[in-house]
Amino acid sequence: MTNIAILGFGVVGSGIARVIETNEAEIRRLTSDTINVKYILDKREFPESPYKDRVVKDISVIISDPEVSIVCEAMGGVHPAYEFTMAAFMAGKSVITSNKELVANCGVELMHAARKHGVIYLFEASVGGGIPEIRSMRTSLAMDRMEKIDGIMNGTTNYILTRMKNGGVSFEEALKEAQSLGYAEANPSADVDGIDAQRKIMILSAIATNKLAEEAQVYAETMTKISSMDVDAASRSGHSVKLVGSFRKLEDGMTLYVCPRFVPLSDPLAHIEDVFNGIKVTCAMTGDVMYYGRGAGSYPTAAAMVSDITAIMTGCAKGELIMRWRHTEGEYVVPFEENSFSYYVRIKTDSVSDTDEKIHLVLGDAKKLEGAPLGYAEYITAEICEKDMRSAVDGGTLGEVESLIRVLD
Amino acid sequence: MTNIAILGFGVVGSGIARVIETNEAEIRRLTSDTINVKYILDKREFPESPYKDRVVKDISVIISDPEVSIVCEAMGGVHPAYEFTMAAFMAGKSVITSNKELVANCGVELMHAARKHGVIYLFEASVGGGIPEIRSMRTSLAMDRMEKIDGIMNGTTNYILTRMKNGGVSFEEALKEAQSLGYAEANPSADVDGIDAQRKIMILSAIATNKLAEEAQVYAETMTKISSMDVDAASRSGHSVKLVGSFRKLEDGMTLYVCPRFVPLSDPLAHIEDVFNGIKVTCAMTGDVMYYGRGAGSYPTAAAMVSDITAIMTGCAKGELIMRWRHTEGEYVVPFEENSFSYYVRIKTDSVSDTDEKIHLVLGDAKKLEGAPLGYAEYITAEICEKDMRSAVDGGTLGEVESLIRVLD
Repeated sequence: MTNIAILGFGVVGSGIARVIETNEAEIRRLTSDTINVKYILDKREFPESPYKDRVVKDISVIISDPEVSIVCEAMGGVHPAYEFTMAAFMAGKSVITSNKELVANCGVELMHAARKHGVIYLFEASVGGGIPEIRSMRTSLAMDRMEKIDGIMNGTTNYILTRMKNGGVSFEEALKEAQSLGYAEANPSADVDGIDAQRKIMILSAIATNKLAEEAQVYAETMTKISSMDVDAASRSGHSVKLVGSFRKLEDGMTLYVCPRFVPLSDPLAHIEDVFNGIKVTCAMTGDVMYYGRGAGSYPTAAAMVSDITAIMTGCAKGELIMRWRHTEGEYVVPFEENSFSYYVRIKTDSVSDTDEKIHLVLGDAKKLEGAPLGYAEYITAEICEKDMRSAVDGGTLGEVESLIRVLD
Repeated sequence: MTNIAILGFGVVGSGIARVIETNEAEIRRLTSDTINVKYILDKREFPESPYKDRVVKDISVIISDPEVSIVCEAMGGVHPAYEFTMAAFMAGKSVITSNKELVANCGVELMHAARKHGVIYLFEASVGGGIPEIRSMRTSLAMDRMEKIDGIMNGTTNYILTRMKNGGVSFEEALKEAQSLGYAEANPSADVDGIDAQRKIMILSAIATNKLAEEAQVYAETMTKISSMDVDAASRSGHSVKLVGSFRKLEDGMTLYVCPRFVPLSDPLAHIEDVFNGIKVTCAMTGDVMYYGRGAGSYPTAAAMVSDITAIMTGCAKGELIMRWRHTEGEYVVPFEENSFSYYVRIKTDSVSDTDEKIHLVLGDAKKLEGAPLGYAEYITAEICEKDMRSAVDGGTLGEVESLIRVLD
């Protein structure tokens, strides 16, 4: 019997207990063992729960119990999750987390401490909810060069964009729907402004490179400015609008960013709808691999955490790529402005004379889209450096640029 | 240094050597070790190859060399691959294979022998080429109940169906293209008649249930009868035509089969194009997980085999779900005829009076499709048992049924 403690008995934490109950036979088949939830740490009482007698309010009960070998942290937030995790490591306990904020901010220190104390720190559920991409990257893809990652890693914004496309509703309406369905928070900033996806692409990039970027190095652009006109232009030009977190391995560094993209319909990411997530990893020899599934929700996220528990129990986790993360130093992270993109551009025609000529003069080759709304000209440009694009837009030579969305390569 | 031998130096076998060279740094990062290709078994000489001095013609050289710990079987076919694999096990060597025919036919005996001799038998590359779905199923999803698998697992037929849809060409033309591009064999039967996909769904089902079905228990329907009219009807009704291998866990058994399907566009499988493969596994708690990538090709397939080598080297393989496959007994495999499907049906209208009435009388609820070609009526039926559908068609009460394709649920 393996004794675990669950920190935080909310949506995810209570899901862990439920998955362990429901899948007892499968867990036994895999590990020849059972999992016992010995403690639950939470400030609240759960008088109706069959686990009510296991609730404790003091972390030291868990830390000081030598029978607990694995701690499942489902609290969220950096503090006190960080301190509790470190305390568990020092007591020789392995820790599992779904906490992307913690891993993205303190991953270097946490991975180092886990190694130092000879314990394991796993974080499958921190990116892509129930999607098992992290273990797969650390076991199967790790022998290949992971050169490129593009992910739809936020279900809330993907739901909003799907509704805008298929339901013809505005961003505001779609957001309200998402809120009433419980997909979006009252304050949706972490989702719609790309902060959630930023943390996730930081984590995946660190798996690929051993270098954990700082938030300030990772450009994140809000998707709140996406309009129905953008969604329509995407359809007309063979694209879907998606909020994509991207990583590119460069010669001597990397670049990573989150922004709305025109995703070509030939890319499987273009067809990921509703709250589903998709993470595409491009490797030197294996080519494209995409993982698809539920990026959130109690049971999928909890199942990913239980898969981390069983990976420790079977010994599989010890065979995963060891995480020797370091902070990025010097010029390892190439600034966003130095990347090149092809852009979708929408310009108000009355704001500029000779739009076509200006476009070609400033941006070189560009394809004009058919069917633009009255009063607008729309283009898909050739590849151009972000810095140059910005100065062209800011300099006003293109007239009033109402929309500028990068095309996914 | 880990010494390996490669059996068969064709497209896949030579790819293994190339992946090991190219990814030396990544392999070292993952395993803290290097891989040395000590022997290559092949009847041919390779005077131009840097590996020419390692070619042997006698398997016993490899089997009797205690320095070789892992044998990579990339020969294909059941014999002598089976005998060579068994000999390697008996000599204490682990074996890796891309040979789906061998695993689907002799998996029970091979898994048993590997366990008996305390060695490891891995077969990631046997299904889905470079897609790492097998290790992911055996590590991450194994703690959940795998209830349903649907896979596009044959790149050749998916290329043909994609060309029929996007290029508007006939099956015959698309097949010729596939042959000239090297995707299809001169005799394409194993691909187009679903035999390749049949083996693959047998393997995935055995991972989920520990029961390896026999070929005779697994219905496989050719996709050579798919016409442009079918492809067009699929588009009109919000579907793509795909050749899908399916597994369903039932109360006390399972059912598995391969046939062309109308896949709803809301399903990510509908958007898998060209030679790419996609495998969707539905679990009780995790929900849908789909794996996407290159289902064939030298480097992707070889990379999957190298990931099996490194999984043995790191110890990860020892933590994977142990394969205790058995032959299916009694009524464990439910016959195909007992499954229920919704069907796309195309009927020649001059072959029957009152088509609509007959349809409703015989099949119950059915949705008539708009835009059917002149002289035809088209329907998507409600769920009906395969047995009943067959007797309706064979009994002639529906008139001349020109096409009957099951809809994916």
